[in-house]
Amino acid sequence: MEMLIKRFRQKDRLALSKLITMVENNSPFMLEIMKAIEPMAGNAYVLGVTGPPGAGKSTLVDKLIRTFRHEGQKVGVLCVDPSSIFSGGAFLGDRVRMEWAYRDDGVYLRSLATRGALGGLAPRTSEIIKILDAFGVDIIIVETVGVGQMESDIIRYSDTKIVVSVPGLGDEMQALKAGILEIADIFVVNKADLQGAQDVADDLQMMLYLRKDSDWTPEIVLTEAQSERGILDLYQAIQRHRDYLSQSGRGELQTKRRREQTCHYAIQEVLKNYMEKSFGEIEEVRNIFEVVREGSLNPYKAADEVLKIIFNSKKTLMEGD
Amino acid sequence: MEMLIKRFRQKDRLALSKLITMVENNSPFMLEIMKAIEPMAGNAYVLGVTGPPGAGKSTLVDKLIRTFRHEGQKVGVLCVDPSSIFSGGAFLGDRVRMEWAYRDDGVYLRSLATRGALGGLAPRTSEIIKILDAFGVDIIIVETVGVGQMESDIIRYSDTKIVVSVPGLGDEMQALKAGILEIADIFVVNKADLQGAQDVADDLQMMLYLRKDSDWTPEIVLTEAQSERGILDLYQAIQRHRDYLSQSGRGELQTKRRREQTCHYAIQEVLKNYMEKSFGEIEEVRNIFEVVREGSLNPYKAADEVLKIIFNSKKTLMEGD
Repeated sequence: MEMLIKRFRQKDRLALSKLITMVENNSPFMLEIMKAIEPMAGNAYVLGVTGPPGAGKSTLVDKLIRTFRHEGQKVGVLCVDPSSIFSGGAFLGDRVRMEWAYRDDGVYLRSLATRGALGGLAPRTSEIIKILDAFGVDIIIVETVGVGQMESDIIRYSDTKIVVSVPGLGDEMQALKAGILEIADIFVVNKADLQGAQDVADDLQMMLYLRKDSDWTPEIVLTEAQSERGILDLYQAIQRHRDYLSQSGRGELQTKRRREQTCHYAIQEVLKNYMEKSFGEIEEVRNIFEVVREGSLNPYKAADEVLKIIFNSKKTLMEGD
Repeated sequence: MEMLIKRFRQKDRLALSKLITMVENNSPFMLEIMKAIEPMAGNAYVLGVTGPPGAGKSTLVDKLIRTFRHEGQKVGVLCVDPSSIFSGGAFLGDRVRMEWAYRDDGVYLRSLATRGALGGLAPRTSEIIKILDAFGVDIIIVETVGVGQMESDIIRYSDTKIVVSVPGLGDEMQALKAGILEIADIFVVNKADLQGAQDVADDLQMMLYLRKDSDWTPEIVLTEAQSERGILDLYQAIQRHRDYLSQSGRGELQTKRRREQTCHYAIQEVLKNYMEKSFGEIEEVRNIFEVVREGSLNPYKAADEVLKIIFNSKKTLMEGD
């Protein structure tokens, strides 16, 4: 472990990949890893890019990487695609198209699989963002599909949240708008050469009047990622939002909130591990579970018993007793 | 609280609704409620019905309720629809169509909203199922849409898992099949009068050969819910699966596993409540969080400090220290 962290500190990309894989696979060393790298993190800026399949997100991300690279920034990209199990081919296609990026030392690409066919679990995106951050990447782009719970959790870790749409989505677009209006900082209408692009932009503009919780008015950018038209506009919009976050103090606020969340989350993890270990080790607890399984003890009463045993306390932790 | 539980025991439907609402809204009395009703539960049989929008699930459920009512069974129905915020009209339509059921004392219908526009949180389905169970309902039908993580969690609580499809879904169908093949006990091909219904059934049949983890071979039933054709077949397939669960011992195994899960889950809840309370009450803990927010303390190190304070212990709960 220490060796791995040391190599990570020395900017060894293999060590980076290995740490990400460990965290992705819920390694028992997860907390130890996070604790060790925490002091190195805190400098990267995170962009979240989401939108329905077929909106051209991959091409857009590709062009964004090039732009940031052109500015001398190191870029990390996380692609979280719950549907990727159904589109192995498409992903392979992306890989081939992005081959230049795999050969560029200033780019780190990583695809995060979600577990299980049924939507699956969200991968440990916030931890993996932090690992990339600690590695010394300047910009982290997190690409997700759709507007499910998992995707919105993931995009919440981003400093600038970009929602990509395209003309001709119809109802799906409606749902998309209803769901993400509150969180998007920048709307991209991609494939702007297609008919109806301006309508989509106008539509979004109108819906933005409904949003009043923030002093940042989301920008709407038309792009043709394929031909790079609009990419510079998008890059500048991102810069403006970044400036806004830093000047308004909102960025600092977000950072503080995230630090506290990390702490709460770490507490949960430690407790969870501690409980699981206790369940296995303490015979008295195992016996209680057995009685519960047989149906002879109310599981809610048993919960209290188990907690009393584990924390070696005479008082109940359950309220109302 | 005690009054409410007492009225619940006396089969007061208003008390039932009120308890469900409290649990749905994460009432602080949640654990108390669940502890009190636990001894009354354990008799209901749970059917999970899922499938894409437009598959005719509501009509199918309507006909199933009628069939069970005809057999003298009391039926509870939970409709969990994350997209319902986008289709308020459709839901209202269902209500009107199901009016007979609202007037039938042997039927209890309940729609569970998911929180937040963005997919939202899964409601406390397992607890609400238990409340209906404790109320004395014989059959509980849980209707969900789609194949996301939330829906699959919900359908996991069901004894018999029914997946509804219709001809003409194309790619969506493919995804559906890949995702739910492992969990479905019965496949319904609804709108069987439409062209391609037999193809869908044949397709499913073929995919079933890939499934080998169980000694139950999922049945495939063709229905036209609208005209009630096939409903009796479905009813009988449900009975056969129910018999299989009881004769093979799998049902008992599932019940035991669920009891233990309930206990684990209650432990988590108690701990969570206890921690939150402690966070607020202990000044030393509040101070640590403040230092973490300012960035002067590693959140992972802080987590350990907080746990030491709360559990008044000198040893660390974190492994590897």
